[in-house]
Amino acid sequence: MVIPPMAKITILGAGAMGSALTIPLADNGHDIKLWFTEFDKPILNALAQGREHPRLKTRLPKEISLYGPSSLKEAVEDSEVIVIAVSSKGVYPITQRLRDVGGYEGKIVMTVTKGIEEFNGEFMTMTQVISKNLGGVDIVFVSGPSLAAELSRRMPTHVVYSSVREEVALEAKKIFETQYYRISVTSDVIGTELCAALKNPYAIAYGIVEGYSAKNSVEGYKNLRASMITKSVSEMAEIVSRLGGKKETAFGLSGFGDLYVTCLGGRNGLFGRLLGSGLSVEEAFKEMKARNLGVVEGYANALTLHNFLLRKGIGPRDAPIIHTVYKILYEGYDATKVINVL
Amino acid sequence: MVIPPMAKITILGAGAMGSALTIPLADNGHDIKLWFTEFDKPILNALAQGREHPRLKTRLPKEISLYGPSSLKEAVEDSEVIVIAVSSKGVYPITQRLRDVGGYEGKIVMTVTKGIEEFNGEFMTMTQVISKNLGGVDIVFVSGPSLAAELSRRMPTHVVYSSVREEVALEAKKIFETQYYRISVTSDVIGTELCAALKNPYAIAYGIVEGYSAKNSVEGYKNLRASMITKSVSEMAEIVSRLGGKKETAFGLSGFGDLYVTCLGGRNGLFGRLLGSGLSVEEAFKEMKARNLGVVEGYANALTLHNFLLRKGIGPRDAPIIHTVYKILYEGYDATKVINVL
Repeated sequence: MVIPPMAKITILGAGAMGSALTIPLADNGHDIKLWFTEFDKPILNALAQGREHPRLKTRLPKEISLYGPSSLKEAVEDSEVIVIAVSSKGVYPITQRLRDVGGYEGKIVMTVTKGIEEFNGEFMTMTQVISKNLGGVDIVFVSGPSLAAELSRRMPTHVVYSSVREEVALEAKKIFETQYYRISVTSDVIGTELCAALKNPYAIAYGIVEGYSAKNSVEGYKNLRASMITKSVSEMAEIVSRLGGKKETAFGLSGFGDLYVTCLGGRNGLFGRLLGSGLSVEEAFKEMKARNLGVVEGYANALTLHNFLLRKGIGPRDAPIIHTVYKILYEGYDATKVINVL
Repeated sequence: MVIPPMAKITILGAGAMGSALTIPLADNGHDIKLWFTEFDKPILNALAQGREHPRLKTRLPKEISLYGPSSLKEAVEDSEVIVIAVSSKGVYPITQRLRDVGGYEGKIVMTVTKGIEEFNGEFMTMTQVISKNLGGVDIVFVSGPSLAAELSRRMPTHVVYSSVREEVALEAKKIFETQYYRISVTSDVIGTELCAALKNPYAIAYGIVEGYSAKNSVEGYKNLRASMITKSVSEMAEIVSRLGGKKETAFGLSGFGDLYVTCLGGRNGLFGRLLGSGLSVEEAFKEMKARNLGVVEGYANALTLHNFLLRKGIGPRDAPIIHTVYKILYEGYDATKVINVL
């Protein structure tokens, strides 16, 4: 592979995925700045002392320059590419701060943050937030099956970069791609963003079926598990298509691939399994806390998506799994109701 | 659910799936005849003595009439529906025998047997064999994620019945469907048959990645596993589409759903895992035998499909995974080559 000429990249947010991206970037010889939010201070301390990243359990490349919360302007001003890697609720404020300090104009702004959030009564995807607050930048959305810890260990990972102008996604691909970090590109931004936003509640649904299976049978309910994940992907494809994306996006790495890896591990699946084994929502949360796994993203996602889909005219008939997950989490429905959907 | 009026059904072949179908049929109150091939004698003995089915480890309904190999004519002559449930190599001879004894004319002939086989130099799917040897019958192909042992225990199972004339599939659905055995219908017979024929080598490929992962990492390579299964389904969709079927069939229960359940358990996946962990093909077979798991369907399938696809002009560039599996199994390629495909 031809290593592209050195580029200057700033990553905003030192969480798992933002930090993991420094590995392929360093392997490609780029100049990397990592900016820390106010919430990232424990991570900053660890890295500044040469210790491993507390969430990745890996050391990051030595060449990275570290920037504290108050140095946003300095972190971005010389860079060609800015990667937003904060939480989904953090994307709105960080883009406002960027607008205030400047230095983003004419650059490629990428985001590894996924989700749909309600800001001032309006539902927005992450690239819509960026576009609203930072007019005129080229935006690249990153999705696909990529657990950050694996990427940081250079385990084979294949993701999708999407941009309304595909050539921008290709430009980003040239900078980031390595032997172990493969990148496909697409212009179906709304499709990839919807898939990424939808996957967590589907992972909870799958977890419920797994938990129910494990409780009722030693080996079994594999037929049911296969139906569940297949129908989740079909429902996702239907939603994507209704909202202007391509069905095939839901069947590819950004949809099914990412859902699959989410089902293989992670908190949403575990939370679902606890519900499927018979725990109430409250009991499941208690159990998650006892295991030191506080936040279950899909829980908040299910509420937002329920409201978002209703506003778009996509009700329980068109998206039965997602709306049933909502009812299980917020309206006291029995978890096994999700099985009846099938 | 309205139980349809009693129908007379004959199942040819008392293997796992043919026998499991007697459960929903009996629950719906139908008249069931089960005919045994020469290979099924140990099963016949067990059932005739009131013992459980040796492969399903379940007792079959008492009301079933049992027919030995020499009573094919008597087994089929009064029935309205004939279900072929022999091995894929057995479909040609059984349909020839049916033609000889008669009694199939004007009936619905269903098959739960999957695969593509070469007969007299011609590659044929199962419904093509039936159609060739039993002209003029209505054919229904059964596929989807349905492990027979689960169906026989009334665990929730959702399958697909396909027929060139969809109304025939609907007629069969009325007879077979129960609360736990749900049936969707489609007219994309070539699509569902190709998916069913292709899934075993893909399950081997997935197994290789799993075995490789487990050998090299305690937790890991989930990103790779997700990519592998996603790309298998995409490749399957491409093949289906090239050969006249619908891509969406590959993304549904007959394609992805069935592949998923095959990856969750079964011999093909295990065989793949042994290869992925570093064993040679010979060593993997030895290990399978030691575990009393002789036949790995995907091994023979890979050879047939390799030749079939080449004849159809679909080479390694269009179907890299399936051809690589062939090369691993028959040409001494290192198993990890399948990872390079990704």
